[in-house]
Amino acid sequence: MPYPDENFLLHSATARRLFHEVAAPQPIIDYHCHLSPREISTNKRWTDLAEIWLGGDHYKWRLMRANGISEDLITGDASPREKFQAWAETVPYTLRNPIHHWTHLELQRYFDIDLLLSPATADEIWERANAKLAEADFCAHGILRKFDVKMVGTTDDPADPLTDHQAILASGLPTKVWPTFRPDKAFLVDQPAQLQAWLDKLEEVTDTAIVHLSDLLNGLQQRHDDFHAAGARLSDHGLVRCPALECSDADASLIFDEARAGKAVSQEDKERFSFYLMVFFGQLDAARGWTKQLHLGAFRNTNRRMFEQLGPDTGYDTIGDVSQGEALVTYLDALSRENALPKMVLYNLNPADNYLFSTLTGAFQDGTVAGKIQFGSGWWFLDQKHGMEMQLDALSATGLLSRFVGMLTDSRSFLSYPRHEYFRRILCNLIGGEAERGELPSDFDTLANLIRAISYGNARDFFGVD
Amino acid sequence: MPYPDENFLLHSATARRLFHEVAAPQPIIDYHCHLSPREISTNKRWTDLAEIWLGGDHYKWRLMRANGISEDLITGDASPREKFQAWAETVPYTLRNPIHHWTHLELQRYFDIDLLLSPATADEIWERANAKLAEADFCAHGILRKFDVKMVGTTDDPADPLTDHQAILASGLPTKVWPTFRPDKAFLVDQPAQLQAWLDKLEEVTDTAIVHLSDLLNGLQQRHDDFHAAGARLSDHGLVRCPALECSDADASLIFDEARAGKAVSQEDKERFSFYLMVFFGQLDAARGWTKQLHLGAFRNTNRRMFEQLGPDTGYDTIGDVSQGEALVTYLDALSRENALPKMVLYNLNPADNYLFSTLTGAFQDGTVAGKIQFGSGWWFLDQKHGMEMQLDALSATGLLSRFVGMLTDSRSFLSYPRHEYFRRILCNLIGGEAERGELPSDFDTLANLIRAISYGNARDFFGVD
Amino acid sequence: MPYPDENFLLHSATARRLFHEVAAPQPIIDYHCHLSPREISTNKRWTDLAEIWLGGDHYKWRLMRANGISEDLITGDASPREKFQAWAETVPYTLRNPIHHWTHLELQRYFDIDLLLSPATADEIWERANAKLAEADFCAHGILRKFDVKMVGTTDDPADPLTDHQAILASGLPTKVWPTFRPDKAFLVDQPAQLQAWLDKLEEVTDTAIVHLSDLLNGLQQRHDDFHAAGARLSDHGLVRCPALECSDADASLIFDEARAGKAVSQEDKERFSFYLMVFFGQLDAARGWTKQLHLGAFRNTNRRMFEQLGPDTGYDTIGDVSQGEALVTYLDALSRENALPKMVLYNLNPADNYLFSTLTGAFQDGTVAGKIQFGSGWWFLDQKHGMEMQLDALSATGLLSRFVGMLTDSRSFLSYPRHEYFRRILCNLIGGEAERGELPSDFDTLANLIRAISYGNARDFFGVD
Repeated sequence: MPYPDENFLLHSATARRLFHEVAAPQPIIDYHCHLSPREISTNKRWTDLAEIWLGGDHYKWRLMRANGISEDLITGDASPREKFQAWAETVPYTLRNPIHHWTHLELQRYFDIDLLLSPATADEIWERANAKLAEADFCAHGILRKFDVKMVGTTDDPADPLTDHQAILASGLPTKVWPTFRPDKAFLVDQPAQLQAWLDKLEEVTDTAIVHLSDLLNGLQQRHDDFHAAGARLSDHGLVRCPALECSDADASLIFDEARAGKAVSQEDKERFSFYLMVFFGQLDAARGWTKQLHLGAFRNTNRRMFEQLGPDTGYDTIGDVSQGEALVTYLDALSRENALPKMVLYNLNPADNYLFSTLTGAFQDGTVAGKIQFGSGWWFLDQKHGMEMQLDALSATGLLSRFVGMLTDSRSFLSYPRHEYFRRILCNLIGGEAERGELPSDFDTLANLIRAISYGNARDFFGVD
Repeated sequence: MPYPDENFLLHSATARRLFHEVAAPQPIIDYHCHLSPREISTNKRWTDLAEIWLGGDHYKWRLMRANGISEDLITGDASPREKFQAWAETVPYTLRNPIHHWTHLELQRYFDIDLLLSPATADEIWERANAKLAEADFCAHGILRKFDVKMVGTTDDPADPLTDHQAILASGLPTKVWPTFRPDKAFLVDQPAQLQAWLDKLEEVTDTAIVHLSDLLNGLQQRHDDFHAAGARLSDHGLVRCPALECSDADASLIFDEARAGKAVSQEDKERFSFYLMVFFGQLDAARGWTKQLHLGAFRNTNRRMFEQLGPDTGYDTIGDVSQGEALVTYLDALSRENALPKMVLYNLNPADNYLFSTLTGAFQDGTVAGKIQFGSGWWFLDQKHGMEMQLDALSATGLLSRFVGMLTDSRSFLSYPRHEYFRRILCNLIGGEAERGELPSDFDTLANLIRAISYGNARDFFGVD
Repeated sequence: MPYPDENFLLHSATARRLFHEVAAPQPIIDYHCHLSPREISTNKRWTDLAEIWLGGDHYKWRLMRANGISEDLITGDASPREKFQAWAETVPYTLRNPIHHWTHLELQRYFDIDLLLSPATADEIWERANAKLAEADFCAHGILRKFDVKMVGTTDDPADPLTDHQAILASGLPTKVWPTFRPDKAFLVDQPAQLQAWLDKLEEVTDTAIVHLSDLLNGLQQRHDDFHAAGARLSDHGLVRCPALECSDADASLIFDEARAGKAVSQEDKERFSFYLMVFFGQLDAARGWTKQLHLGAFRNTNRRMFEQLGPDTGYDTIGDVSQGEALVTYLDALSRENALPKMVLYNLNPADNYLFSTLTGAFQDGTVAGKIQFGSGWWFLDQKHGMEMQLDALSATGLLSRFVGMLTDSRSFLSYPRHEYFRRILCNLIGGEAERGELPSDFDTLANLIRAISYGNARDFFGVD
C-alpha cells in the first residue's frame, strides 16, 4: 500500500466520501503565492529534481541544517545530485513533520513514484523523477492544467511593470494569473537608499516625477489602477505587527520629504508614516472592492551572520511573539471610521493568537459581504495538519467556518498544489468525524455543500474569480 | 433521530452513564449571569421567538453580520418576523459554531422542537415556538423551576437600590436570586461626568454625602453590607487587566478629589486609584467570606463607529492579548500580604493564558478553603466545547479539577440553561473516555462523585448556597 | 487490574509493541535534575514514606493547599504520619492531575503496591512502603541500578567544590553523575551582599582573589575547566527571560566594580551585566563542546508572604507570560555572530510559546551537529501528558522530532524515574496511533528506531555519554 494511501488523513467513512466525491474534484484557486510570473509567462521547465524541489525551498533547508547537513550541500557549491543525496538522507529523519507528508504526496502526484525517499531509494527516485521532468507536459502550464488551477495570485511590487502578466494574458493560458499589489518598499523611510532606488522604478513605470508625498500617493493610485486593469483584486502586506500611530497629512509629508532627501527617519516616524500609508492603501482597496491581506507576526532574518551570507528567505525566520491585538484594532477601526474597510484576510503566524484573530475579525464584520473579514488559513509554520486544525477550530468556535475562503499555498514552488489536497483531507476529516459522532447534522448534502464552498466556491465568489 | 440526540457529545458508555445517571439530574447553580432582576421580579413573559431569542444576544448578531446580513435586520427597524428570518438564513452557516448546538438544544429543551432551523423550517418553528411562549409555564419563574435552578447570581451596581431583589425575596420564588457587587463605575476617575452621575445615585441609595474618598469608601462598605443582607456572596470586576500600581491613602484621596472636582485624571492615576479600590474591595470580600470574580482580558468596543451607533455589548468586543501575569500576581500578592485574600474565581478570555491562570491560582492557595482560588470556566468566546476542554485540561494538569465550582452561563437570556447541560456532557465525555482508556480509575462511584461535585455540589458548598 | 495497568497510555497495538519491546528496555539518561550529590555520594536511605515522598516536593504541597490542607500538615510541625495522612486525603482529589498517575506508578514500581492511595488504604500503604524502605536495595545506589540510569546530571554552583562528585567517582558507582555548571549567583549585582558571600566561596574554591571583572571571568573559566574534569558537559541557567542589552567590556567592569564595592546596581545595569556574562558563558560552553540549557519563563516566589515564611521552591511559583522571542533571538544571534553558539536545550514554561521556541531553534541550526539547538521536553508545569504532547506536536510540526534528546526528570526526588516511563508511553502512543492511522509509514523497524533514539540513543550521542 502506498504511503500516503488514498484514504490518508480520512479516518471515517463520511470523511472519505466527502473527500473523494466532493472535495477532490474541485478546481483550485490559489489566491496567494510567490510563484514567479516570469516562470509562468515563459512556461518554465526544470532540468532535474534538485532544481524543482530544493531550489529556494527554505523549509527543506532548515530541516537539513537541523539534521547536521553542512551548508555546502544546502545552498553551497555541491552538485545537484549531491544536494539531492543530502536531502534523501534527511527525509527519514522528518517523521511527523509535514515535509514528510508533502514529500511523498509530491512524489506520487507529480512523478508517479510510490517509494519512500531515503538513501536506499535516492538513485531510483532521481532517475525516474528526472525522466518525468523531461516529458512534454512537465512544465509550468502543464502543472496548472493538471491540477485544474483556475486562479493564481502572484505577489508583486507596484513598481513592477507587469510585463509578465501581460504576456500571460496574451498567451491564452486558461488559468487566471492575477498580480497582487504588495508595496513593502513604500514603507522604507528608514532606509532612504533602498527607498530612492524603488522610487526611481516607480517614477519610470508611472512616467511621473515623485517629489512630494502627493506624487507618491498619485503614483501608487495609478499603479493600483494598472494592477486592477491587469486583473488584480488583492493587495498584501507583510508586517511584524500593524503600525498603529496616528499621522496627519502634514506630518506624513514631512517624513517623506526627509527620507526623499536621503535622511533615515526614526522608527517612530516610520511607524507613523506606515500607518498613514496603510490607511491610504485600505482606501484604495475599499474603493475598488479588493481584498487586503495582512501577514502578521514573523521575526525575519534573526540570524544576522547567515543573513549577511545568504540574504533573506533562506530559512532564518521564526514565529514572533509581539502583541498584535491593540495595533490591529487601531488599524481596522481607523478604516471602519472612514467607511473604507475593505474585505480582508488576516494571516496569523503564532497559534497562541488564533483566538485573538478569530474574535477580532468578528468585531469588524459589517453585514455587507458574507465573511468580509477573514481569519486566514494556517500560515507558513502553521500550514500543517496541527496548525490547520487549530485555525479551523478557532474560526469555527467563534466565527463562520461556512464562509471561509480556505486554502492557499503561499509557495514559491510549482510542486505545492498537493497542499490543497492536504488541506481538503484535513477539513473532510474534521467534518466527517464530527458528523459521525453526532456533533454535526448527518445530512450528507449539508456537509457536501460546506466542503464544496470551502474548497472552491467561497474563494471564487469572495474574490470574484470568473 | 433528533439533532442533537440524547447521547450528544457522549462518546463512551461510561460517559453516557455518567451523564444520564449522575450529571443530568443535578440542580443548577448559575452563580454569575446578567439576567435582569426586573425580569425575574416581574416574572417576565415574551411575545415572540425574536424577542426572547434575538433581543440583546450579541453572539447571534456577530454571526449574522459575518453572514452578510444588514444591520437593519439585526438591531434595526425590521419586524421581529423579518429578523427571525434573517437568523433562520444564518443558522445553516453556523456549522461547528457552538451557536449551532445551542440553537437546537434550546429548540428541543424549551420548545419541544426537533427541527433544524433554516429558511425551510422558519415558518413552522416561528409558529410552534410562539405557541409555546403563550403557555402559562413559559415565564421567568416557570423556566427557573423547569431547570431546577437553585441559585442565580445577577450582576448589580452598588448604587442599585436592589428593589427587584427585595421583591423577588418577598415573592417566595424558590430560586435564590443573589445580587453581585460589581462596582465598575467607582473606577471612572478619568470620566468625571459619568463618575458624578454615579456618585449622585450612590449618595441617594446610601443617604449620605460623598465628598471625600473616605465617604466613598464608607458608602461602598455600606452597600456591601446591604448586598450581603440581600443575599449577595459574590463580587465581580471586568478589567482588561488587573491594575497593578501601588497607591497610598493620601494619593488616592487626591486623585478622588480631582475627579470629584470634575477633572479627568491621567491613565496612570486611574490605574493607581483602581489598584487602591481593588485592594479595598478585596478586603470587604475577605471580611465577609465572599468570593471575588475577576473577568480579565476583553478588548471592548473596538469598533468605534458601531459603538457610537449602538452602544456597548452589541457585538464589537474581542479577545485581547495584553500580558496578565505580573499584574495579577501584584494584586493577589497585595491582598495576601494583608491577610485579606478572599475566595476568588479568575476568568480568562484568551486560551493562550490558560496555563498562566491555572498555575497562578496554585501559587495563592492557602489551605483555608478547598479550591480557594478558582480558575473559572471558559468565559465568553471560550464558553464552547473546545474552550471548555482547554480550560478543563489546563486546570486538571496543574490543579484540582475535583474542587472546581464548574459552570455558569454569564448570560443575558433565560434560554441559556442548556449550556449547563452542554458543559456537563463535555465533562462526562472527558471523564468517561479517560476512564475507559485506563487513564482514570474505572470505579464508577469515584467518577460519579467527581461529576456530581463539579455539576453542583462544589458550587453549593463553595458559595454557601442553602 | 492494577491502575495504571501495563498498557497504560498505550491505545493501539503498535503503541503497545513499541513501548514493551523497544522503549521499556532502554536505559535512562537523566541529563538534568536536582538530585543532591551528597545523597548520591552517601548512598542515601529513607526512614519513612513521608520523608522520601513528601519532603521537598512542592508539586504535592501545592495540591494539598488547594485541597484545603493547613500548612501545619504540609511544611509544618505535624508528624510524618500525619503529613502522610493529609496527602492520602488529598490524592483522591487529584484525578486528572499527573500527580495521580505518578503517585500510583511510584507505588507500583518502587513499592510493589497496587492500591489506590486514599484514607482507606493509608495505613496499609504506610506500613508496606516503610517495610520496603528498610530493605537493603532501597537506597540511592539501588534505585539508580534498578532503573538502569546511565547518567545523572545534577545542578551545581561553580563555587561548589564538587567533593561529592569526586567521592561518587571514587566509589565506582556505574551511573555517571555529572555536575552541571549553573552560575545563577554570578548575576546578583543587584544584591551585593549575596554576591559577596558567593564571591568569597568562589575565591576559596579557586584559591584566587576576585577583585576585578577579569578575576571573576578567570575564576569562572577555572571552575568550568574543573567541572569539565569532573565530567560536566552541560551548563544551565534559570531566567525569567534572556537578558538582551548589549554591554561593553568596560561597562561590565564598572558594573562589577560597583557591586563588588557593595552597591546594588540598577535593573538595567543588571540586565546588561547579565547579557555580558551570558555571552561569556556561551563562549565557555562552545569552546568545550558543552550543551547550554536555558530554563525560561517562570515567575518565582510570587506570594511574598509565604516566601518570607518558607523561602524559595516551596510551591509559590507560576508560569509567566513575558515575551521571550526578541530577547532569545538577541542572545542566540550574539553567540552566532561570534561563532560561539554551543549546543543548546531551550526549555519553555508557557505552552503558548511552544511554537515560538520550536521555530526559533530552527533559525539557529547550523549543520554542524544534528539537532544542535534543541526545544526541550515539557518543563515543570508542562511535564505531564498534555504538556508533553503539546511540546512533541510543536517540535514535530516545525523541526526534527527524530533528533530530539527526549526526557529528563528535573526532579529533586529519587522516586521520579517512572516519569521516563511515562514520557515513553506517551511518545509510543503518539507514534503507534499515527502509524496505524496511516500518518506515518507502518514499517515497524522505522518506528522502533525513532523510539529507541528519543528514549536513549539521541541523548547518549548528543551529550557524549559512554
